Amino acid sequence: MSETSDSSRIESLAAIADLDLDRTARRGYPEAVYAEGKTIEQLQVIAAEIARSGTRVLFTRLDQTKADALRRVLPDLGWDHSAHLAWHPSAFPAPTGAKVVVACAGTSDLPVAREAWLTARFLGRDADLVVDVGVAGLHRVLGHLDSLRAAGAIVVAAGMDGALPSVIAGLVACPVIALPTSVGYGAAFAGLAPLLAMLNACSPGVAVVNIDNGYGAGYLAAQITAA
Amino acid sequence: MSETSDSSRIESLAAIADLDLDRTARRGYPEAVYAEGKTIEQLQVIAAEIARSGTRVLFTRLDQTKADALRRVLPDLGWDHSAHLAWHPSAFPAPTGAKVVVACAGTSDLPVAREAWLTARFLGRDADLVVDVGVAGLHRVLGHLDSLRAAGAIVVAAGMDGALPSVIAGLVACPVIALPTSVGYGAAFAGLAPLLAMLNACSPGVAVVNIDNGYGAGYLAAQITAA
Amino acid sequence: MSETSDSSRIESLAAIADLDLDRTARRGYPEAVYAEGKTIEQLQVIAAEIARSGTRVLFTRLDQTKADALRRVLPDLGWDHSAHLAWHPSAFPAPTGAKVVVACAGTSDLPVAREAWLTARFLGRDADLVVDVGVAGLHRVLGHLDSLRAAGAIVVAAGMDGALPSVIAGLVACPVIALPTSVGYGAAFAGLAPLLAMLNACSPGVAVVNIDNGYGAGYLAAQITAA
Amino acid sequence: MSETSDSSRIESLAAIADLDLDRTARRGYPEAVYAEGKTIEQLQVIAAEIARSGTRVLFTRLDQTKADALRRVLPDLGWDHSAHLAWHPSAFPAPTGAKVVVACAGTSDLPVAREAWLTARFLGRDADLVVDVGVAGLHRVLGHLDSLRAAGAIVVAAGMDGALPSVIAGLVACPVIALPTSVGYGAAFAGLAPLLAMLNACSPGVAVVNIDNGYGAGYLAAQITAA
Amino acid sequence: MSETSDSSRIESLAAIADLDLDRTARRGYPEAVYAEGKTIEQLQVIAAEIARSGTRVLFTRLDQTKADALRRVLPDLGWDHSAHLAWHPSAFPAPTGAKVVVACAGTSDLPVAREAWLTARFLGRDADLVVDVGVAGLHRVLGHLDSLRAAGAIVVAAGMDGALPSVIAGLVACPVIALPTSVGYGAAFAGLAPLLAMLNACSPGVAVVNIDNGYGAGYLAAQITAA
Amino acid sequence: MSETSDSSRIESLAAIADLDLDRTARRGYPEAVYAEGKTIEQLQVIAAEIARSGTRVLFTRLDQTKADALRRVLPDLGWDHSAHLAWHPSAFPAPTGAKVVVACAGTSDLPVAREAWLTARFLGRDADLVVDVGVAGLHRVLGHLDSLRAAGAIVVAAGMDGALPSVIAGLVACPVIALPTSVGYGAAFAGLAPLLAMLNACSPGVAVVNIDNGYGAGYLAAQITAA
Amino acid sequence: MSETSDSSRIESLAAIADLDLDRTARRGYPEAVYAEGKTIEQLQVIAAEIARSGTRVLFTRLDQTKADALRRVLPDLGWDHSAHLAWHPSAFPAPTGAKVVVACAGTSDLPVAREAWLTARFLGRDADLVVDVGVAGLHRVLGHLDSLRAAGAIVVAAGMDGALPSVIAGLVACPVIALPTSVGYGAAFAGLAPLLAMLNACSPGVAVVNIDNGYGAGYLAAQITAA
Amino acid sequence: MSETSDSSRIESLAAIADLDLDRTARRGYPEAVYAEGKTIEQLQVIAAEIARSGTRVLFTRLDQTKADALRRVLPDLGWDHSAHLAWHPSAFPAPTGAKVVVACAGTSDLPVAREAWLTARFLGRDADLVVDVGVAGLHRVLGHLDSLRAAGAIVVAAGMDGALPSVIAGLVACPVIALPTSVGYGAAFAGLAPLLAMLNACSPGVAVVNIDNGYGAGYLAAQITAA
Repeated sequence: MSETSDSSRIESLAAIADLDLDRTARRGYPEAVYAEGKTIEQLQVIAAEIARSGTRVLFTRLDQTKADALRRVLPDLGWDHSAHLAWHPSAFPAPTGAKVVVACAGTSDLPVAREAWLTARFLGRDADLVVDVGVAGLHRVLGHLDSLRAAGAIVVAAGMDGALPSVIAGLVACPVIALPTSVGYGAAFAGLAPLLAMLNACSPGVAVVNIDNGYGAGYLAAQITAA
Repeated sequence: MSETSDSSRIESLAAIADLDLDRTARRGYPEAVYAEGKTIEQLQVIAAEIARSGTRVLFTRLDQTKADALRRVLPDLGWDHSAHLAWHPSAFPAPTGAKVVVACAGTSDLPVAREAWLTARFLGRDADLVVDVGVAGLHRVLGHLDSLRAAGAIVVAAGMDGALPSVIAGLVACPVIALPTSVGYGAAFAGLAPLLAMLNACSPGVAVVNIDNGYGAGYLAAQITAA
Repeated sequence: MSETSDSSRIESLAAIADLDLDRTARRGYPEAVYAEGKTIEQLQVIAAEIARSGTRVLFTRLDQTKADALRRVLPDLGWDHSAHLAWHPSAFPAPTGAKVVVACAGTSDLPVAREAWLTARFLGRDADLVVDVGVAGLHRVLGHLDSLRAAGAIVVAAGMDGALPSVIAGLVACPVIALPTSVGYGAAFAGLAPLLAMLNACSPGVAVVNIDNGYGAGYLAAQITAA
Repeated sequence: MSETSDSSRIESLAAIADLDLDRTARRGYPEAVYAEGKTIEQLQVIAAEIARSGTRVLFTRLDQTKADALRRVLPDLGWDHSAHLAWHPSAFPAPTGAKVVVACAGTSDLPVAREAWLTARFLGRDADLVVDVGVAGLHRVLGHLDSLRAAGAIVVAAGMDGALPSVIAGLVACPVIALPTSVGYGAAFAGLAPLLAMLNACSPGVAVVNIDNGYGAGYLAAQITAA
Repeated sequence: MSETSDSSRIESLAAIADLDLDRTARRGYPEAVYAEGKTIEQLQVIAAEIARSGTRVLFTRLDQTKADALRRVLPDLGWDHSAHLAWHPSAFPAPTGAKVVVACAGTSDLPVAREAWLTARFLGRDADLVVDVGVAGLHRVLGHLDSLRAAGAIVVAAGMDGALPSVIAGLVACPVIALPTSVGYGAAFAGLAPLLAMLNACSPGVAVVNIDNGYGAGYLAAQITAA
Repeated sequence: MSETSDSSRIESLAAIADLDLDRTARRGYPEAVYAEGKTIEQLQVIAAEIARSGTRVLFTRLDQTKADALRRVLPDLGWDHSAHLAWHPSAFPAPTGAKVVVACAGTSDLPVAREAWLTARFLGRDADLVVDVGVAGLHRVLGHLDSLRAAGAIVVAAGMDGALPSVIAGLVACPVIALPTSVGYGAAFAGLAPLLAMLNACSPGVAVVNIDNGYGAGYLAAQITAA
Repeated sequence: MSETSDSSRIESLAAIADLDLDRTARRGYPEAVYAEGKTIEQLQVIAAEIARSGTRVLFTRLDQTKADALRRVLPDLGWDHSAHLAWHPSAFPAPTGAKVVVACAGTSDLPVAREAWLTARFLGRDADLVVDVGVAGLHRVLGHLDSLRAAGAIVVAAGMDGALPSVIAGLVACPVIALPTSVGYGAAFAGLAPLLAMLNACSPGVAVVNIDNGYGAGYLAAQITAA
Repeated sequence: MSETSDSSRIESLAAIADLDLDRTARRGYPEAVYAEGKTIEQLQVIAAEIARSGTRVLFTRLDQTKADALRRVLPDLGWDHSAHLAWHPSAFPAPTGAKVVVACAGTSDLPVAREAWLTARFLGRDADLVVDVGVAGLHRVLGHLDSLRAAGAIVVAAGMDGALPSVIAGLVACPVIALPTSVGYGAAFAGLAPLLAMLNACSPGVAVVNIDNGYGAGYLAAQITAA
């Protein structure tokens, strides 16, 4: 009856997860597995079930060690070294729906912005990534105005003052998905400052997601621009 | 050169506001005036300009006293006693685009939910309002499943634990706009608890707006469901 | 009179702890030793006293290195690699009282959920562990309804939005012990988001414990279901 | 199609609430209506439905004006001037189950403690109320030890340092329900200080509810002590 | 020896304040009296000393009742009904130094912006007030570019997302004084959101003052632009 | 068995409080009654017991209405209109022990400073009150250096930046009791700013009490300076 | 004029610190050097000055590597491996004044408690250290009552719920110095929970210092108990 | 169409940044690159563009590894081992404008103070660095009074209680730039305590920048003292 430390650790799927393989039917988009806090062993059990069923799936917050381990079970796995995002199968579908633009305030916001950009593409959208358009140099934003006005949804990733979504939303007709990042220091409080700024955007038409949640932003953008 | 207290207080428009009357052309939807913190005198100056130009406009956070004062300048003003929202002209346009559903967790969330519902209708959508579907009685949510699945966007207003958007988003394909309310007490911290819960929704496809910001939620819903 | 760094570090029990060996008589359950912040040397002094007196005891927040060191003093020590929980002696007692169910929203919540599950069993209860029943896929919760309704107390471990305790409490008659976890990122603020959500659960009958406090949740469940 | 301010305000039940009259069957205890943020008109519509169906029900956070208005619809309504709690019908049932003790740290915590005490009694328990047993005078706590040790569950209401639940839980075998109150000033931050203290109680066996949530504490106590 | 309530309340200056009448010599600018939390009686004692010594002085946070009471002691008092600021004597000095521009994001920020504008003028600067140039309509900011670029210091008052200082600082060479206001609701948290945004401005050259501290902003602007 | 609203409200002492009349014997100083949150009726029941036993006692946070009501039961009651503090009997004892100095940063801090000053005197100390010695004019602090250096304990009341205790503690040998006040606005966050500053005083020898807790500061000063 | 990375790093005392060697004359106790954030090189420069002048001094937050480096400059240095405190010279003075008792709620609080205990002894007091007297086992506190009542000042170190200072202060006549520790997890928020509890102690006579500030607590205790 | 992990990582400038090389023309001072969160590869791409265009530039938050990598592309790079600041070219310009003084409360604040000091010099100012003038020893501040009064702007870096800017601003006529640092522990909350204290400085003329933002403080000082 005891659970000693030498007990076997080979875990069965039922003991660790209940995959929502039906999600595409119900919600229109496949399951995503949050890899942080899961062991390599647990991820491999989950991956084996995915390999067995052939499901499309995303893995978020997946570092290189875990990605390498997963690929041993799921060989056709795409992975981005910067976004820590993996997807299966590795090929993106042919895009449908309206165009998504992901705008990124600074170079340091790129990992999160790429997570949004790759998610939107994996979920079936044509998506552009525009970098380093922070409000400190407004001409950089204004230089992309045509591209921004042609989008069906715009994801705006920004840390620090989080001012970019307000500025962009004031210039376009489509919804802006504000994606706060933990870029910054001191009173940025790990993304709290841009999060609060975005929730209080003085332009209407701004939808906020969690700090550093590139996956959620890309998912919303794909939903909004679905054909 | 002095500004004594007996100086004339009749304010000119230029001294208090620079109305964005061009907003419909640029953004697709008309200007909204945030009435909190503005004096009756200032609101009347703004209203006179609206009357002059015939612009469509919303007034948010407008209490009864201010609404009565505005109607003296703008006779064809609609106003909702619960949502503290006014709109001009009072007639809603014929709806276009997909259906919006506004779901409201509890009766106390109604004022904010109504603000979202009325905003979506003023901006040109057909919108339903579903009340008292909190997760404490899950059968009440599930009883509206057909209606929820037929929507192009769903606004979910909830205070306290803010659990409803996660539950609804897990059941539908369209985007869910999570609208935290300040309903609750103690550790609800005036809406902070549902706000954080919604930002951390375990279902993807949840777009968060500011606490009690029914106007912003309705605006986003209208954008997303535009034809 | 000086305390130089070369002073002997061999510590006596009296200098570091005053074990509450009488706790079972007074409170019905044995002492638990919080291992975080204690040195290996201090833990071994405590363990020697436990070995001497033959007391039943739990060690919480005990990592592998410390567990290995303890087992040299207390050979019959159970330890769980995931929950970082140890117990002595290693055999669980024959269960009495009502059934405890530990429900776990996601795989990443498993370590904390296991701590609750093992604690309840060590304190004399029959306990089940149900995994991955997050509200994003409500059918997974509803599929366990019979099991949940048969419990005398339910521990619900969840991070992120912390919505699961509200949903489950709304479906059952027994008390629900809400166990927030630090799973999540950004505005989860290391468990603050689910903690606040649980304190504001819109269903009554929800008892909240500290973030990641699986021991406390299991203890409460054992108390409530005592014969 | 317009919603002008002169529109009729007589609200139908369907437009404002979906009463969970089935709750007793499902959860064992009747519905409770949260009165804060509801208008008198809305409360009367709800009360009419209760009168019609004869359901047992609690109203929380109900001030005198609203209580007087409700009694015009529900004549057999009990109401407590201090706890702002109402119940229907006014007679408490004959008690069953184990005894509940509600201990109150200071006189200023009485309104919240009474809410817990009355709720437990309305839900069918025998309950005692012990006042002014704060830890500043430990002899006052210790003088009630026999009564505390005879209880099946103890609710401990305390503001300021929230130290009382830790002290009492260390002395008894039954679960302690810690009920933080907003009593105090400055760094009490409206109940945050005792809430955090209670979540970190150094004694196990402490279940925490929301600040000033006497109803939730009484409900939990009734569940735990059910026969 | 007792201090009963019927003791005389006529207070002497020494018992309540130690005016810093030497401040102009030491710091270059006169004393300011913070009126909030002071009684009318105390303010009148202070005013009498000012009348006696003929000192120049500002009174901040002074409401109408207190202003009326002060004017009975200091007849040549200027007062602004919106900024709740008073100054003595009422005439502003002939301006010296560089031009100050006070830019105000929205009409609701006007009271705080006026406090900055009047302070700068009382301290000897030529100052312009530009209203309603929020980033939601960027053309409104850009339309004032020549005026902004001619300033020696710019005060930018903004609530909500606090994005305006970043945008303006990115366009000009002079220092920008960011003045967060408590305008907004929900997650604006009474000015916390714009305060954090401004502290994290992605443009350098932004100096932040306390929420709603128009006096401090105007003072800094006057210092920076001194001849 | 019902508790209807027409039930008698005449409360007995046992039902509302358990006075710690033995406190002087155990702790050296008499009981204090926290009046906030207590009804006039409850305070009068307590006062009657005090009148009966002749105990010395303080009432904190007592407004004028309650003070007038108390004096009907306890005629020899001292009360301070600014500090909202009452004491019985009204005469202060002949002072013993070392001198206490209460230093007050600004006039707006006076009510809290007076509470400390009166408490120390009621508890038997000779105490001086020094006003308006904020660090903005350092010469005002330095001008009181002799008096400060002669004290056995110094209470320093300050809001806003809370800098005064650090400055004074760096100049004297005796303990400094730092008393943060809620004076200030914006990012003072109702006393949080000075509280944190005082807890982080760069001078050692600073003891912090709760925001606006003049009673606690005066009590500590009296303890420290006891003969 | 350039500061390239190959510039000499040998720092002079004047470039890094201005030691307050006069502190004993002015404040009665010697200087203390805060070692965190200082480089080994900087500490050695400071130590050389101390060696030269023969001053008594404490070093706080000094880890083993830095202690070893310091001892090369200051051979007669005392250091405690647990408290990370060093002192020079290593011998404690013969004690004067009243007795100090340092009470420690749990074994994990020992490092901080030892810092207070050693500081008080270095500053000239006789001091006792009492361990593991947390309120979860009240008999452990009460067993030390005689010793506690004989003290001139008591330092109480506690993490988690921070309840111990309230309990002890209610039992004794001397001042209690409440020393919150960062022991705990989750909603302990690195010491915030016990800090707030201690600031709101329901017993008067509690002086609070910063989280983990054993040095400050020991310093205050020494001041209060000075002969 | 897939983005597999073996995709080429050689990044082009356009893919990662849009340098604001025009900034000097527009704002008067050159671009600064925030190095935290940027990869070495990205920094080298940026540096190559700077080498090509010959622009003056600062790199903030640049550790030794990155500095070494950058110098391979930009040989004439200055770098400070303490401030983690680099600049190109390495020679400072001949100073113009008024003198800047950087005052530093404690030795642990030196890295941040040096960042301000070096920034001001790179931007063309003559600047002095004054160390260890914390308010715990007021004579150290007062000893620098002549130097402080001769400055055109003073940067004051301080952690812990953040009291120094208030004290210095009260003594001088020029603007004080308050630079909070994360020096301290416990309730310093990584710089929150000094930040709040500085925002609430009781002396006017205090401009606050972000925690540890030496670059921003130096930039502001250079702007204010420009000829």
